[in-house]
Amino acid sequence: MSAEDILNEIKNHVMKTAPGNAAITDVQFEGPEVVIYAKNPEIFSNTFVRELAKLFRKRIAIRPDPSVLMEPEIAKKKILEIIPDDAEITNCIFDANTGEIIIESKKPGLVIGKEGSTLEELKKEIKWAPKPVRTPPISSETVNAIRATLYRERMDVKEILRRVGKVIHRDVKLREDSWIRMSFLGGAREVGRTCNYLQTPESRILIDCGINVAMDGDRAFPHFDAPEFAVEEIDAVVVTHAHLDHCGFVPGLFRYGYDGPIYCSKPTRDLMTLLQKDYIDIAEKEGKVVPYSSKDIKKCVKHIIPIDYGVTTDVAPAIKLTMHNAGHILGSAIAHCHIGDGLYNIAYTGDIKFEASRLLEPAVCNFPRLETLIIESTYGAYDDVLPDKGETEQNFLKVIAETIKRKGKIIIPVFGIGRAQELMLVLEEGYNQGIFNAPVYLDGMIWEATAIHTAYPEYLSKNMRNRIFHEGDNPFLSEVFKKVRNTNNRRNIIDSDEPCIILTTSGMLSGGPSVEYFKSLAHDERNAIVFVGYQSEGTMGRKIQRGWNEIPVMNRNGKSRAVKVNLSVHTFEGFSGHSDRRQLIKYLRKLKPMPDRILTVHGESSKCIDLASAAYKLFKKETRAPMNLDAVRLK
Amino acid sequence: MSAEDILNEIKNHVMKTAPGNAAITDVQFEGPEVVIYAKNPEIFSNTFVRELAKLFRKRIAIRPDPSVLMEPEIAKKKILEIIPDDAEITNCIFDANTGEIIIESKKPGLVIGKEGSTLEELKKEIKWAPKPVRTPPISSETVNAIRATLYRERMDVKEILRRVGKVIHRDVKLREDSWIRMSFLGGAREVGRTCNYLQTPESRILIDCGINVAMDGDRAFPHFDAPEFAVEEIDAVVVTHAHLDHCGFVPGLFRYGYDGPIYCSKPTRDLMTLLQKDYIDIAEKEGKVVPYSSKDIKKCVKHIIPIDYGVTTDVAPAIKLTMHNAGHILGSAIAHCHIGDGLYNIAYTGDIKFEASRLLEPAVCNFPRLETLIIESTYGAYDDVLPDKGETEQNFLKVIAETIKRKGKIIIPVFGIGRAQELMLVLEEGYNQGIFNAPVYLDGMIWEATAIHTAYPEYLSKNMRNRIFHEGDNPFLSEVFKKVRNTNNRRNIIDSDEPCIILTTSGMLSGGPSVEYFKSLAHDERNAIVFVGYQSEGTMGRKIQRGWNEIPVMNRNGKSRAVKVNLSVHTFEGFSGHSDRRQLIKYLRKLKPMPDRILTVHGESSKCIDLASAAYKLFKKETRAPMNLDAVRLK
Ligand SMILES: [Zn+2]
Ligand SMILES: [Zn+2]
Ligand SMILES: [Zn+2]
Ligand SMILES: [Zn+2]
Ligand SMILES: [Zn+2]
Repeated sequence: MSAEDILNEIKNHVMKTAPGNAAITDVQFEGPEVVIYAKNPEIFSNTFVRELAKLFRKRIAIRPDPSVLMEPEIAKKKILEIIPDDAEITNCIFDANTGEIIIESKKPGLVIGKEGSTLEELKKEIKWAPKPVRTPPISSETVNAIRATLYRERMDVKEILRRVGKVIHRDVKLREDSWIRMSFLGGAREVGRTCNYLQTPESRILIDCGINVAMDGDRAFPHFDAPEFAVEEIDAVVVTHAHLDHCGFVPGLFRYGYDGPIYCSKPTRDLMTLLQKDYIDIAEKEGKVVPYSSKDIKKCVKHIIPIDYGVTTDVAPAIKLTMHNAGHILGSAIAHCHIGDGLYNIAYTGDIKFEASRLLEPAVCNFPRLETLIIESTYGAYDDVLPDKGETEQNFLKVIAETIKRKGKIIIPVFGIGRAQELMLVLEEGYNQGIFNAPVYLDGMIWEATAIHTAYPEYLSKNMRNRIFHEGDNPFLSEVFKKVRNTNNRRNIIDSDEPCIILTTSGMLSGGPSVEYFKSLAHDERNAIVFVGYQSEGTMGRKIQRGWNEIPVMNRNGKSRAVKVNLSVHTFEGFSGHSDRRQLIKYLRKLKPMPDRILTVHGESSKCIDLASAAYKLFKKETRAPMNLDAVRLK
Repeated sequence: MSAEDILNEIKNHVMKTAPGNAAITDVQFEGPEVVIYAKNPEIFSNTFVRELAKLFRKRIAIRPDPSVLMEPEIAKKKILEIIPDDAEITNCIFDANTGEIIIESKKPGLVIGKEGSTLEELKKEIKWAPKPVRTPPISSETVNAIRATLYRERMDVKEILRRVGKVIHRDVKLREDSWIRMSFLGGAREVGRTCNYLQTPESRILIDCGINVAMDGDRAFPHFDAPEFAVEEIDAVVVTHAHLDHCGFVPGLFRYGYDGPIYCSKPTRDLMTLLQKDYIDIAEKEGKVVPYSSKDIKKCVKHIIPIDYGVTTDVAPAIKLTMHNAGHILGSAIAHCHIGDGLYNIAYTGDIKFEASRLLEPAVCNFPRLETLIIESTYGAYDDVLPDKGETEQNFLKVIAETIKRKGKIIIPVFGIGRAQELMLVLEEGYNQGIFNAPVYLDGMIWEATAIHTAYPEYLSKNMRNRIFHEGDNPFLSEVFKKVRNTNNRRNIIDSDEPCIILTTSGMLSGGPSVEYFKSLAHDERNAIVFVGYQSEGTMGRKIQRGWNEIPVMNRNGKSRAVKVNLSVHTFEGFSGHSDRRQLIKYLRKLKPMPDRILTVHGESSKCIDLASAAYKLFKKETRAPMNLDAVRLK
C-alpha cells in the first residue's frame, strides 16, 4: 500500500467512527503523526484517540480546523479580557501548526482557573488550545527567535511536515534477506565529529552529525566520503544533544541537499541553534572553512520535529525512535531505535552521565528491548576514575574562597552549555552559605544558555523542579550572578580592584572572552584560573594547565607576544558531564535487558578498546571498538 | 597530472632516448601497460625496456606497428614455407593486440631452429613476434572459441584496453585522511557468492563475484544492495579462480552497467567461461533466475586482462595487484594488493590448498609485505582434519578394484574442474599398476575441462610438467580414458555388462548426467557410487550419502518415482582441493611476513569463528570472522 492508500484507510475509519458533530475537515500525515482536523476538536474523547493509535499503530493528533481559529491578534485581546490581570500574562505564543497557544504568565494557576474553568471558557471562545506555562524567569533571545521563525514560516513548516509524513508512511517491501547495519562516519575511536549512519535495506538514518572544532580540513567533518553515504538517501536525522561534536554539522546537511526531518528534544533544538550560530561566527573570524551559513541554520530549524523523552515515534518505514534522558546536558538523549518486524533494538547512548547532578537526573538504563548497545567511552580506560563530586565541589569552593580572600579574580573558562550551569548551582550554594562574598560574572554565551535552561524546567532534575515550581526559588536568578553585557563592561571588570569570579567561554581558551580575561589577568599572582573541563592537546588551556611560564598570544595588531603566567592554576576533574569508568561499568551492570552486543565509541582509541575489553570480560557478550568507516552488521 | 599528461611525458622521454632507427609510431596506455609501437621493434634492448619500466614505474611493452605486420593469411603461408614440415604445425593463432603469433606444433624445437635461427628468420619476414608452443594434446573448444572471439573483436578489445589504461593511470589526489576498507558482500561466514569489495577514497575494486548455486532468490547472489556498492564506480574486478562461488556473477556485472577490466589468469579465463555457460544452461532448464546471457559472457571475455603469477600490475590509481599460485585448481590465485603511498598490503587467499597435489604446487605463503590476510575457512574448525591423501588414494583404488572384480560399475559424481583431473591422475596410475582393468568414462564437462588443463601445462605441478614436456608422457592421454560423446553413447554404457568407472558431473547429483547414471544403476548391488566432494544439505547426493533406501526422482514426464538404492555407497574426503584445518594453521605458521590482521571468510559461521579464534590464540594478532555486509576498516 502507498502512503496515500494507508491515509485513505485511516480517513475512512475516522469518518465512520468519529462523533458526527465533530465536523472533521481533513486527515493528514504530518511528520510522524496522523492529524485529524475538525471544527469541533474538543468533542473527541481520549479513548477515541488511544484506540485509533492502537489500531493503526501511529501517533494521532486532533487539531482545530484553521478556519475556526480566531485571528491571533483578536484572540490575544480575548485572552487578556478573560484572564484576570493578577495572572500577569507576559507572552502569548501561537503555534499555527498545532493550533496551540502557549500563555506565559507569572501565575499560571490563575490562567487555569478553578478546576480548569477559565481555560475551558477561553477554549470555547478562541478555539486555539491554550497551554498555560510559567513565564521563564530569564528571557531567551534564541527561544524567541526560533518561535518567531516557526510562526512566520508556518506554511513552509506544514508543507515540510506533510512531505515527511508521506516518506515515513510510505510502503516498503520487507526483504526476505533483511539486514541492519551501522557505519561509523566519525567519533569512533575519537572524540569529535560523531556521526552514526544506520542502514537497513529500506531506510537510512543519521544519528548525530558533529564536527571536531579542534581540527582543520577534512578531519573536522565526518567521513561523508564513505561509499555508502548519500545525503539524498537519508530518511531522517536524529540529534542526541546540542554539543557541537554531535550536532555541529547538521545545518551543513541541508547545504548538501538534505531536505528531511531532524528529530531532537526541544531544548536540544534551541541549544544547538545557539551553538551552531556561535560556531560559524568563530569559524568565519578565524578564517576556517565554514560549512554552512545562518540561512542553513534557519532551514534546519524549520525541519526539526521535536520529540519528548519516552514518546515512540515513527521516523522511517519500520523504524521507531524513542528518546530517553541521558543525564549529560539539558535535553540530552539516548536514542533507542526499534527496527522492523524482527523487532531489533539498538540503543545509542550519545554522551551519558550515570550519576545525578545538580541539574539533571542520571541516564536511563531500562529499555523494553535491546540487542545492541552503542556506548560512549570518553572516560573508558581502566584508570579513568574521576574524583568524587561532593569533594570536588568542596575543594573548588575552597579555591574560590581563598582567591577572593586575597583580593584575586578567578577565571573559570567553561563550555557554555551544561557545565556552566552546574557550576552556577555550586557557586550559588557556596554564596548562600557564606563561603565567599563576591559577584559571579557570566560572559560569552553562558547567560543565553542559562535562559534556555529556565525555559525548559521540565527537563531539569526533580530537585531543581521542586525548587523552581514549588518553592519559587530559582537559583539561576540569584543576585550573585551578573551578566557581562559588552566589551566596556568586560574592561571594567578586568580593571577594577573588586575580587570576583568570571565564568566565561571558550572552555579551552581557544578563542572568545576567556582569552581576553587571561591576557589581562595572568600576570597577577593574586588571581587564579580554574579548569573544570578537558583541555585538548594544542590548545592554550592545555599549555596553561601544564604549567608553562609564558604563553604566546596574538595582539590585536596581529603580532605575537608572551604573557607571563603568575596566577595560580587549578584543575577540577570532578565536574564532568560524562560518566567516568566506574559509572560506565555500573551503567552496563544496571542495564536492562543485557544486549547481545556492545560497541564502544566516543573516546580515544585506547579508551574505547579498554572499555570494550572490560565489557567482554564482565558480560561475555560480543564487544567491539569500531573504527571510523567500519560498517558493523547488527542483524 | 592527467593520464594524457603522464602519457605525453613518457612519449617525450621515449622519443628522446630510443634508438633513432626504431621508427616509433605511437605510445599508448593499453590496460595496465604502456605500449610502444615501432616499425622496427626488434631494435629495442631488454635493458632499455627495464630502465623505462623502472623510471615510470609502469609495465612497458614494445610491439610492431600494425602497418608492418604481414597479412595473417600471407604470414601463415610464409611460416609453412620457412619451417620444416617435420615440425608438424597444427595451428597459428594471431593475437592482433600484442602482435604475437602462437605457432602450435608437435615439435616446437624445429620451429625455433638452431640457436633460434629459424625464429629469427621468420620474425624478419612476417614482423609478427612468433611464440612457438607444443600443440595441446587435446583440443579445447572453449580455448578455440575464446581465441576466435578475441581475434574477431580485436578492434573492440583494443578500444577497451585504451579506455582502461586511461582509467588506471588517471590522476588522483591522495587525501591527507586516507583510508582502506573491505566490505564483504558475500561469502563471509558462508560458502557461496563470495564477493569482496575493496574501497579507498580513490578506487573501488571487486575481488571475486560469485553465486551460490544451491540457493534461490536474493541469497544466490552477493549483497549488491549494500549501500556502498555502485557498479558504475568499480575500477576493476579481480577473479581468483574459476569456481562459480568466486566467478559465477562476473558476466552479470556487465548486464548491470559494469564496463571495466577483469583481471585473472588465462586458465581462469577459459575455465570460468566454460562454467558460466554451463551455469546459465542449467539455470535456464531449471527455470531459475538467470542473471545474464551468453552475450554477457562474451562481453566479459573481451574485458579480461589476463595476468601471470608473480607479475605486478597496476589495476587502479595507487593499487597494484600480484597474483600467486593458490594450489586449489588450475590457474587459481591468491590476490595480493599493494595500496597507495602508505604501502598497505592485503593478501586474499581465495581458496587454497597448502599441500602439493598430483596436479598443482602448494599455495604460495611468502609475500614482500603483508598487513592484512583474508583467508578461507572451508575446513576451519578444530576437528576439520581430512584423511591423509596417500591413504585415501589407496582406499579409493581398493573400492574401484573390488567393484570392477564383481562386474560392477562405479559412478563418481564429481565437480568438473580440479577434483576430476586429480582423480584422473589417480585412476591412470592405478590402471598402469594393474590395480583394475576397465575403462574410465568421462561425461559432462570433464573432457573439456581436461582439454583446458592440457592447454596450460605451465600452470601444472613440476612433476606433471616434467612428465608432459620431458618424458612426452601425458597422463590425460592414457588409453583408459574415454569420452562420452552423446546420450546414445551414455545409454550404451549403462546398458552394457562391461564393468567400468564413470566420472561425471554434477558432483552433488543436483542435475546433469550423474543423475541419469544413478537412476539406471542404483538398483544393482554390484554397482557402487563414490563421493569425493562435499554434499550440500538438501541435494540428492546428501540423501544417498546418508543411506536413504529410496530416493525420489523426477521422470521425464514430470512424475515423481522412487529409486531403490542397492548399490554400495562410499565417501572419500581426502581428495579435497581445500586446505584442512591442519594445513590452514600450517599456512599461517609458514606465512611470511606475519600480518597485523587476519580475517577469516569462506566457511560456515562456526568454522570462520573457530579459525579466527585459533589464529588469535596462536599469533596474538587482530583476528575477526566478518559477516556479510560488514565493512572492515583496514587502514
Ligand atoms: Zn556531549
Ligand atoms: Zn560528545
Ligand atoms: Zn574454489
Ligand atoms: Zn570457493
Ligand atoms: Zn565495454
